[in-house]
Amino acid sequence: MLNFDFYSPTYFAFGRGTEARTGELALRFGGRRGLVHYGSGSVIRSGLLDRVRRSLTEAGVYFTELGGVVPNPRASLVYEGIEICRREKLDFVLGVGGGSSVDSAKAIALGVPYEGDFWDFYCGLAVPEVALPIGSIVTLAATGTEGSNSSVISNDLRGNLKCGVNSDLVRPLFSILNPELTFTVPKYHTACGATDILSHIIERYFTNTREVELTDRLAEAVFPRVMEAARVALQNPEDYEARADLLWCGTLAHNNILGTGREQDWSSHRIEHALSAEFDVAHGAGLAVVIPNFLTYTLEHDPARFARFATKMFGLEPEGKTELELGRAGIEAFRAFLDEIGMPKTLGDLGIGREHIPQLLRAVVPNNGDLVGYFQPLTEQDVTKIFELCL
Amino acid sequence: MLNFDFYSPTYFAFGRGTEARTGELALRFGGRRGLVHYGSGSVIRSGLLDRVRRSLTEAGVYFTELGGVVPNPRASLVYEGIEICRREKLDFVLGVGGGSSVDSAKAIALGVPYEGDFWDFYCGLAVPEVALPIGSIVTLAATGTEGSNSSVISNDLRGNLKCGVNSDLVRPLFSILNPELTFTVPKYHTACGATDILSHIIERYFTNTREVELTDRLAEAVFPRVMEAARVALQNPEDYEARADLLWCGTLAHNNILGTGREQDWSSHRIEHALSAEFDVAHGAGLAVVIPNFLTYTLEHDPARFARFATKMFGLEPEGKTELELGRAGIEAFRAFLDEIGMPKTLGDLGIGREHIPQLLRAVVPNNGDLVGYFQPLTEQDVTKIFELCL
Repeated sequence: MLNFDFYSPTYFAFGRGTEARTGELALRFGGRRGLVHYGSGSVIRSGLLDRVRRSLTEAGVYFTELGGVVPNPRASLVYEGIEICRREKLDFVLGVGGGSSVDSAKAIALGVPYEGDFWDFYCGLAVPEVALPIGSIVTLAATGTEGSNSSVISNDLRGNLKCGVNSDLVRPLFSILNPELTFTVPKYHTACGATDILSHIIERYFTNTREVELTDRLAEAVFPRVMEAARVALQNPEDYEARADLLWCGTLAHNNILGTGREQDWSSHRIEHALSAEFDVAHGAGLAVVIPNFLTYTLEHDPARFARFATKMFGLEPEGKTELELGRAGIEAFRAFLDEIGMPKTLGDLGIGREHIPQLLRAVVPNNGDLVGYFQPLTEQDVTKIFELCL
Repeated sequence: MLNFDFYSPTYFAFGRGTEARTGELALRFGGRRGLVHYGSGSVIRSGLLDRVRRSLTEAGVYFTELGGVVPNPRASLVYEGIEICRREKLDFVLGVGGGSSVDSAKAIALGVPYEGDFWDFYCGLAVPEVALPIGSIVTLAATGTEGSNSSVISNDLRGNLKCGVNSDLVRPLFSILNPELTFTVPKYHTACGATDILSHIIERYFTNTREVELTDRLAEAVFPRVMEAARVALQNPEDYEARADLLWCGTLAHNNILGTGREQDWSSHRIEHALSAEFDVAHGAGLAVVIPNFLTYTLEHDPARFARFATKMFGLEPEGKTELELGRAGIEAFRAFLDEIGMPKTLGDLGIGREHIPQLLRAVVPNNGDLVGYFQPLTEQDVTKIFELCL
């Protein structure tokens, strides 16, 4: 086991009607003047935004609003949010909607007290030292941003470069999670969200730190439940228990409780970010194409690990199989699940062809000669082969 | 699933040598003048206290010390700690040692800024509104106080009444967990600690809220791992991985991640508190006697739940058994495990006889007619029968 720090300070209010506690929680965590930051129509149509406004108003919290966040949230709107917060002297940012709204709120919270360009934090030119307090109300089980230390932004002003920041300063102080708010998420986005959750577990599970049995067990408790709950939610979108477990799985899959004590990989995310930045595909859909092929490519690096993946995540029987065969069967079971929930299988399904691989490579492989990831560190040639498997 | 709030804001620094970070973490969380509060010889003999002193000194943190905490920590020492903090204008309390030192540190932290008697919080006369910041360095895998909202104190000035407080204000802001510090814990106390950890899972697992499959799965991931790691640690006290998993299991078993979304019971703890308050037995040893008999007594309340306990926690095969038979087999498997790790089986093993039952009952059963617990709410007669099963 490696030494680790675990810090998940977010106050989670989980359950039916919890958005009515927005004002109470804002006050508890020191928010007096907020920016309510959201996406497009769905939070308005569902009445959520009205309920949030009412709760803040009743608590005596001043707020102003900025909508318009899009999936793969953009830097241009972040600049607008920073400007509003400064002009109106706002003291907290509340992201309302999918992970994009919260990631964008995090970027605004970092940018307001910083004299330079917030993008400095995302492109590695500066390390955050202070941020406005952040709250979140999440309407999609997916990114786990409601409890995570990360935020990813696409810079539409600089060639759509998609970059992330990791800092405890962007962990929300409070997050409101009402499973009923996810009832209306369309099937495709429910499936993309589930894929994202599974990928957060996989990135932590395939590691060269072989100890920490406890961390494995926790991952093996959550991963199959994500698959089950996703199946139920796709069949019956208003199944409260399935939606609730899926939502809480999303949080647990990315607040790092499933990754303690071990080196982590994140190659697949890095590879996928190129797809979603360059071609604006849904993050989960991109992961559905990348991850099975990443696993296929790295199978021989550690067959025993893949064999465990097959037995513990998919209940496959080891009898009569080599570790390599069992591992391969596990990857196939994962592909079958992604297919069952309607995820794309190939780059072609995402409208991306072989001719785009050089462009994608430039976004994935560092130009300083560094390799990608830790589980099996990948050269440019390795990443090329993974993209070819994705075709 | 019931609505729930989940809040575990503690910063955990886990691993070898992490006590060298005491000063850094105190400063990060605003501590400038601390009370270092500890038990008896072991933290001195092991050199831990010296390393903590060095780290604080190097960070420029002023501190004073108060040792002498005993298991089932006592109110008289809490008053002394409060007095020292006020006199020296200390701004944080650092508990170093087993759960008792941290529980005592929590009581001091609550008492310092409060005009009345700190015991008001423990006997339910007042609700905490403010507390000094708390840090902890834990040398025993057991109570989970390093991440919990609870503190239990025995009032040696008022007939040894043992009472607890639950408040987010007593969650430590940082906790340092170094598995190597637990290498020297004697076998008996290692086993008591493991029993305490298992009991924290059981109190959350036997519930009438049947949904939240995810919470069950997490509990079923941790519980068997506690048993495995305890066996290894008893065999080889310096097995780092076993000690580390046991220590982190202790935290996870009581920061409520294994209890989200459900009603919880806590009857067994309430019953055991009478034993340890009246007869000063180790908490884990008392639980080892109480819990199997509590389970036996409540088996018929919910045989399906016990059947799941048997299959998931102990890997028992359901074939050919009724739920009741399977459930009974699960309880027997639990008794066998406790016996294997050297825990006592009966009140007699703890030096408590039938003649003491009336005295114990007075400490357990509320005199306002309220029942004990939620899973199967217990009358005085029920609790009497459970004590009789413990004989």
